[in-house]
Amino acid sequence: MSTVRGVGVSPGRAAGPVVLVHDRLPEPASGPEPADLAVEAGRIRPAAQEVAAQLRDRAERASGEARAVLDVTAAMATDPSLLSAAERAVTDRRLPAARAVFEAAAQFAETLAAAGGYLAERVRDVEDVRDRLVARLSGVAVAGVPATSTPSVLVSRDLAPADTADLDPKMVLALVTEEGGPTSHTAILARSLGIPAVVAARGALSAEAAGARVDGSAGTVELVAEQLVPEAATRTENRWHGTGSTSDGHAVKLLANVGSVTDATAALDAGAEGSGLFRTEFCFLDATTEPTEAQQREAYAAVLRPFAGKPVVVRTLDAGADKPLPFLDVDAEPNPALGVRGLRVAFDRPGLLDRQLAAIVSAAEDTGADVSVMAPMVATPAEAAWFAERARAAGVGRVGVMVETPAAALCAGELLSEVDFASIGTNDLAQYTCAADRMIGALAELNDPWQPALLRLVAMLGEASRAQAAPVGVCGEAASDPLLAGVLAGLGVASLSMTAAALPSVGAALAEHPLKTWRRAAEQAVSAPGAAQARERARAVLDG
Amino acid sequence: MSTVRGVGVSPGRAAGPVVLVHDRLPEPASGPEPADLAVEAGRIRPAAQEVAAQLRDRAERASGEARAVLDVTAAMATDPSLLSAAERAVTDRRLPAARAVFEAAAQFAETLAAAGGYLAERVRDVEDVRDRLVARLSGVAVAGVPATSTPSVLVSRDLAPADTADLDPKMVLALVTEEGGPTSHTAILARSLGIPAVVAARGALSAEAAGARVDGSAGTVELVAEQLVPEAATRTENRWHGTGSTSDGHAVKLLANVGSVTDATAALDAGAEGSGLFRTEFCFLDATTEPTEAQQREAYAAVLRPFAGKPVVVRTLDAGADKPLPFLDVDAEPNPALGVRGLRVAFDRPGLLDRQLAAIVSAAEDTGADVSVMAPMVATPAEAAWFAERARAAGVGRVGVMVETPAAALCAGELLSEVDFASIGTNDLAQYTCAADRMIGALAELNDPWQPALLRLVAMLGEASRAQAAPVGVCGEAASDPLLAGVLAGLGVASLSMTAAALPSVGAALAEHPLKTWRRAAEQAVSAPGAAQARERARAVLDG
Repeated sequence: MSTVRGVGVSPGRAAGPVVLVHDRLPEPASGPEPADLAVEAGRIRPAAQEVAAQLRDRAERASGEARAVLDVTAAMATDPSLLSAAERAVTDRRLPAARAVFEAAAQFAETLAAAGGYLAERVRDVEDVRDRLVARLSGVAVAGVPATSTPSVLVSRDLAPADTADLDPKMVLALVTEEGGPTSHTAILARSLGIPAVVAARGALSAEAAGARVDGSAGTVELVAEQLVPEAATRTENRWHGTGSTSDGHAVKLLANVGSVTDATAALDAGAEGSGLFRTEFCFLDATTEPTEAQQREAYAAVLRPFAGKPVVVRTLDAGADKPLPFLDVDAEPNPALGVRGLRVAFDRPGLLDRQLAAIVSAAEDTGADVSVMAPMVATPAEAAWFAERARAAGVGRVGVMVETPAAALCAGELLSEVDFASIGTNDLAQYTCAADRMIGALAELNDPWQPALLRLVAMLGEASRAQAAPVGVCGEAASDPLLAGVLAGLGVASLSMTAAALPSVGAALAEHPLKTWRRAAEQAVSAPGAAQARERARAVLDG
Repeated sequence: MSTVRGVGVSPGRAAGPVVLVHDRLPEPASGPEPADLAVEAGRIRPAAQEVAAQLRDRAERASGEARAVLDVTAAMATDPSLLSAAERAVTDRRLPAARAVFEAAAQFAETLAAAGGYLAERVRDVEDVRDRLVARLSGVAVAGVPATSTPSVLVSRDLAPADTADLDPKMVLALVTEEGGPTSHTAILARSLGIPAVVAARGALSAEAAGARVDGSAGTVELVAEQLVPEAATRTENRWHGTGSTSDGHAVKLLANVGSVTDATAALDAGAEGSGLFRTEFCFLDATTEPTEAQQREAYAAVLRPFAGKPVVVRTLDAGADKPLPFLDVDAEPNPALGVRGLRVAFDRPGLLDRQLAAIVSAAEDTGADVSVMAPMVATPAEAAWFAERARAAGVGRVGVMVETPAAALCAGELLSEVDFASIGTNDLAQYTCAADRMIGALAELNDPWQPALLRLVAMLGEASRAQAAPVGVCGEAASDPLLAGVLAGLGVASLSMTAAALPSVGAALAEHPLKTWRRAAEQAVSAPGAAQARERARAVLDG
């Protein structure tokens, strides 16, 4: 028996037999040379079509985030540049089709990784598509989650987005990954399913245990030689009826993060009261020139339309060296996450911001959605004032800023005197507060949203919110952790915006206790010396 | 007349004729092809020797930081890999010597820039050496600061380290640069000379004005067509007698940052009461394998010896993807400043830390210096406890941590309960607090150490220091700004460690007011909405 420590990202305990998820096929061989190069190259596109069709088929049966993930992966499977690179590797370099796809995908992934930021996050999708294509071209089974007939604990390096979208929730007792952090796919999925999960559990795979006891609160995984009898975590009964509130009726708006029409539909299907974060980047992603105001207006209206009469917080373009966009000529930077990103891009390009603001205002009028607008990556009250002036001049009624930098939280009072509301981006705020890149697995613990340093900044914002009578929300992944969601409400947060799938479990958890209990849990968490203790102390308050 | 706004990094007003510092020679031509390649290649080394000799000669006449800067630049001029690359460019590619040096230096600079962090900061040195070598080989005058007979305002893109070391203080009324930030060479130099300076003043060079009025407090430069009559800033009378204290006798230790034997001598020459930051990286910089404990002991002892009987705070190795070292096999990272750096490197390599701690303890015994030891890049109380346990086990008497992450400041109380003292690294703390890379000129304002968000974190540390009776110092460049130094003291900082050259002006400024005045200035600065207002309000308190 051995115990592996990781980061608990979804609370609860469960035990059962281990199913290892091997996420990589062996590398396909470079030979033998195909007899007919044209025939071999010709196998690639039909295989890609089949993989894409299979993914789309599953997308149709899924909903919310899972559906969006599968749709993106399906599109990647038929990416023209990937497929023609693979075909050329067959015809020019005489490689078998499976090897050709493998090499073309490696090249593609490298380019994405080098671009960093948003694009780098797609590498896992490319690898997933590659494995599916290689499996089909080699005539072997797709790697990934094996089909199981017994509820099990899944142990993997990291789950592919399409894997997580494809899981049968009834067959999964708990999730354990060697990599990943509190904001990884695995964490998000586990929280939305209400099952325990531990990430960054180094050594869990290599132990090759037959059974495991997972404590998603403590972040521990006990690995044993015998196959354990499945013991599921007691799941929270779904007592959420579509309106967020504590058991004593203190309202906390439960909203969804959206970035496409699909997301908007999924959000409303899941019962969201609106959207606390509408990411507008989708409108710019493939553009080689700035989309016109009319194009933007139409694109935003399509997402806003389902929200007619409901609140939506639109975030202006969040791009920069960390999330490069073809039409934005941004210099490469040594530390893109600390560079000219978010609102900073607009300081030299106010026209870009003004045109987007005009398009948002028109789209709001077109659709009847109750639109507010906020700027990403604001650090000082002066920056907030600069943005507020332009937004109000464009006709925006409610203007806000995102709080992602510690500076913005430390100057919360002055910041809120410039705008109407603020929204805390806990993922970025955590990474800057601990100066720890959230993409690096080894630093996952520092990005735990339960770090007291982060909670203390949220508490400052809560106090400023009361003093200035300006609401503060949270739109980071912290909002999708049911226990933490209540603690955030206890700290004075008025709305929580998350992935749609997490809404029912967060709504149910919030309704279990009155506000004063959440406040006591929050006080305990804020005064803890570390993240694990903060979680334990908050849990102890709720357990009485 | 036009007014350019930048960042005021050294207070005071001055006016006078403008001297433009053109920092780049025109690119040397690629032809004609030399008649005798061996003869042409043979010209390079003697020229390099002369440049190095000239720089060393000037180093001997300088002192402190200036001397160290000139020594480093002199060593760079005879770097064997640079010179042989230049020779090969002559013999293999038939280039004239000047062009060969130019291209070899470009290659060299690119490699350094790609390495990032510490090495990237040397690029300016390489460019300086290149310009001197090219000038000598082409038989033209060296670019840089022209000799002037009238006191002038120097306007440049950015000053080379060797330029700043070479200035005649009597002939410089003020410094204005288009690039650079509050921690640039220009800022440090200006503060140590007590002259006004404005950096990040975009457009100052292209205005090609004949005269300028510089306000280093407001951060403005008024550019006019006429050559103005020189008007120097009123300089602080040097009333510092070697012991730091406010006018009413509240002691604030004035210490120097050191990283070599030369620095140690310069620190003591300048009157430092000890060292608040002894950087140990010099011992590892060129090593391809880890230096042995005995080698480290000897290297540290050489720096500690001049400080016998005086306090020295030794910082353990601060390396990582941001400051790569040949013997440390560290992965490249998307954001090295947010990566596995500082103490984080030791978590996977505790032996490396233990051997360094043992060497430091032995070196302290060898020399009689009053040694404390602190760890860089600590984010949580748990990390502080981990380090303290190992340091105490190694026999360190006083153990501390650097506060560079907002998290460490936000958990100041818990942090100080684990260790004996803390030292604030204001440069890094500023960049993480505002999430703004301090190497990016466009973000210089966010790295201004007068940002109220940064001052609020210092105030939290000051309060925790009182509550825990554990001293907190500052060892970032903020300590070398005379006005800010007093404000830091007012916030409860017990020691200030800085570049040796800044000690007299900081010591004199501190002694001008009683502690209660500095406290009032601090309160005003902390409650300001922005950096410029913080500076103005503090100044207003002192001006009565």
